Amino acid sequence: MELYEAMSTLRAVRRLRSDPIPDDVLDRVLQAAAWAPSGGNVQPFRIVVVKSAEKLKTIQSWYQQEWDRYIEPLRSLASSSDDVAAVNSGKIVKAGDYLANHLAEVPALLVFCFNPAHMAITDADLNRPSVVGGGSVYTAVQNVMLACRQEGLGCVLTTLLCYQEQAIKQLLDIPEQWGTCAHIPIGYPVLKGHGPISRRPVTKLVFKDSWGQPLEHS
Amino acid sequence: MELYEAMSTLRAVRRLRSDPIPDDVLDRVLQAAAWAPSGGNVQPFRIVVVKSAEKLKTIQSWYQQEWDRYIEPLRSLASSSDDVAAVNSGKIVKAGDYLANHLAEVPALLVFCFNPAHMAITDADLNRPSVVGGGSVYTAVQNVMLACRQEGLGCVLTTLLCYQEQAIKQLLDIPEQWGTCAHIPIGYPVLKGHGPISRRPVTKLVFKDSWGQPLEHS
Repeated sequence: MELYEAMSTLRAVRRLRSDPIPDDVLDRVLQAAAWAPSGGNVQPFRIVVVKSAEKLKTIQSWYQQEWDRYIEPLRSLASSSDDVAAVNSGKIVKAGDYLANHLAEVPALLVFCFNPAHMAITDADLNRPSVVGGGSVYTAVQNVMLACRQEGLGCVLTTLLCYQEQAIKQLLDIPEQWGTCAHIPIGYPVLKGHGPISRRPVTKLVFKDSWGQPLEHS
Repeated sequence: MELYEAMSTLRAVRRLRSDPIPDDVLDRVLQAAAWAPSGGNVQPFRIVVVKSAEKLKTIQSWYQQEWDRYIEPLRSLASSSDDVAAVNSGKIVKAGDYLANHLAEVPALLVFCFNPAHMAITDADLNRPSVVGGGSVYTAVQNVMLACRQEGLGCVLTTLLCYQEQAIKQLLDIPEQWGTCAHIPIGYPVLKGHGPISRRPVTKLVFKDSWGQPLEHS
């Protein structure tokens, strides 16, 4: 698949079938992660591919709990009226509910782990939330999702399970010094899967030389 | 360009020519950022494209200072012997020195900004460095770098300028509540540019169901 076609049709797909993923397909998706750049080429991430039905059931119960807590405000909004915002909220709630109620059935959940001791986190001491450690992990996460797109697999980047990190680490025997930062269910889509996406136009996201100055070409 | 070809040949290219980037090429690179997924599809990032020669010169002086501080240990190692580690360190130092000494000449430096208030940072309260905010920015960063690969543009993800964040923000009029998290010089390569990469084999990065368990296919 052509690069820009993959990028421009990569959707968050939350309704996934339980059908197994062929070994060679999964291998290509994981290889894509390994190709990603990282600070100093250290590759400070590991992926635990969760396929065990029992472990997925346990993880689903934690996910449901966090999802319900997270979505409560939007759920109220969705049921409050029938205006555009409420209808859109309703769609998000419905797709998310589906994932929360079926997470245990996915053929694979990719749990991305990272080791902060292997990272140069240059914004660690700034007076704002640090994100730079993510620069050596989410590049690989994006590669994985683009590879899923290419392979016809649905996927969605979730991070709600960070609220249950200690429990997840215990369940998957993740060592003390490693954290988790992305939990990506993958599987063939129930509905159409990937396709058109809605994003802001580039002109709203890009400036030239100073904040607020449009990128006008000479 | 085919997706896997782009991913598997995306190198950190630090020697960049000053030749201008055609407008349509730059537009496609920036469009790739806009396509990236983000938490709640909020797109909590902006990109300041720095082309001003004067601003680039100022930024180079800050970058040189941080690079020299960062690379000092490796510089000592590189000059200490002629074994493999020292030779490899020497190559890294040389390419990095080139970038530090020529940053002001690149046709464009992409400064990625993010607003933590627009992010659900689910690992903010954990007893380890937070990275989850990066999940809504470095997906776009990776798209940009893959697009550069497709367009024949060299690029490299740098984060050292976070040490100079207040100064950068002032120079580029970045509002108080926004941070910076990636500073990506782009331009046509001086040497061969992208090509073969060296990464760990997937088997070293991936486990099945439990940490340390190999992903063996049934």
